[in-house]
Amino acid sequence: MSALDLSLYLVTDAVAASRAGLPLPELVRAATEGGVTAVQVREKHEPAAVFLRTVLEIADVIPHHVTLLVNDRVDVYLAARELGARVSGVHLGQRDLPVETTRRIIGPDAVLGLSAAHPDQIAAAATSSAHVDYIGIGVLRATDTKPDAPPPLGIDGMRARAQLSALPAVAIGGVKVDDAHGLRGSALAGIAVVSGICAAPDPARAAAEYRRAWTGGA
Amino acid sequence: MSALDLSLYLVTDAVAASRAGLPLPELVRAATEGGVTAVQVREKHEPAAVFLRTVLEIADVIPHHVTLLVNDRVDVYLAARELGARVSGVHLGQRDLPVETTRRIIGPDAVLGLSAAHPDQIAAAATSSAHVDYIGIGVLRATDTKPDAPPPLGIDGMRARAQLSALPAVAIGGVKVDDAHGLRGSALAGIAVVSGICAAPDPARAAAEYRRAWTGGA
Repeated sequence: MSALDLSLYLVTDAVAASRAGLPLPELVRAATEGGVTAVQVREKHEPAAVFLRTVLEIADVIPHHVTLLVNDRVDVYLAARELGARVSGVHLGQRDLPVETTRRIIGPDAVLGLSAAHPDQIAAAATSSAHVDYIGIGVLRATDTKPDAPPPLGIDGMRARAQLSALPAVAIGGVKVDDAHGLRGSALAGIAVVSGICAAPDPARAAAEYRRAWTGGA
Repeated sequence: MSALDLSLYLVTDAVAASRAGLPLPELVRAATEGGVTAVQVREKHEPAAVFLRTVLEIADVIPHHVTLLVNDRVDVYLAARELGARVSGVHLGQRDLPVETTRRIIGPDAVLGLSAAHPDQIAAAATSSAHVDYIGIGVLRATDTKPDAPPPLGIDGMRARAQLSALPAVAIGGVKVDDAHGLRGSALAGIAVVSGICAAPDPARAAAEYRRAWTGGA
């Protein structure tokens, strides 16, 4: 496993990808060419067999240095690993399996990420008896992707929350390219993007724009 | 783990249970008093944390001889096992994780059941490189519980399909008490019931009626 680079973190949205007319693995591959460093495969509608196939297909086409994570379904991660896929770990929400139990199931070397919005959740992630590798703090803005998301934090709120985290943190939820400028230089380890890349007409180019905005490159 | 007794196999329906005004664990406990021998916890709508809690609660209140299985989510089974719950294994559909990979994840001693409707699926379950403990053959009748279910087999069709199976098989899908009479003496190892018990005004009594119809007792 490569070192965990969360700087540009893509969360997949198969529905947006299919609207854009791209097979999801192709979209993800293009996004990694544009500079995505970590990919979380999120699939809330398809059965496990389809979710697993998607994870295997994405694992096959992305570069080795990119961290590949499975949202929610620890069993899909275990199955992909069992089948020899290059998959790094899981990302859990607060209503998914408990992190302590999950850590015992996936072992010490797998990456374990956790969504944490409220200050008490951010603190709990760092003091958990199980090692959590990073947290996702959301949401920056209200989005259609997660209608049940907590209230939006805005740029200043997000910077303040990131400051609270003893763990590496990525900002998620409606992050636009301009927001990447506003979040740069904060305590954040990176930005997580869903629609901004998955619904973009050119995902590689969109990823490159986020990358440039985040790193401050020309 | 007790020997696998599939004769009266309850599949939970939390929605029906809540309509009947009973907490699901209480309903399941009552059904085991009525003669249910195996319980599959099925939860398609709630997040994993809720699914896990339901499994733990049910494991706590049912008798030791009753086999407890988790539908679809192998990770919820693993988590319950990790937390020390008396849970026996998983039940998979054809669109869930592959049985071979699942068997490697859950180990040789866990119970692994598989839904199999078509003759080729019934044959494949028995010849799989992974040991499958039993199959669920569906559906006997069309139901509202699984709108995506295959066409109904009827009593004669179900008896014929059971005859094809080299593995223990249970009939599922709209099984009524009278059907238990019609299926008795077939190659089936048991009958699986969802609404017939979960939506009954008195689940213990409903279970006892199924039991009597299946065993031919007075």
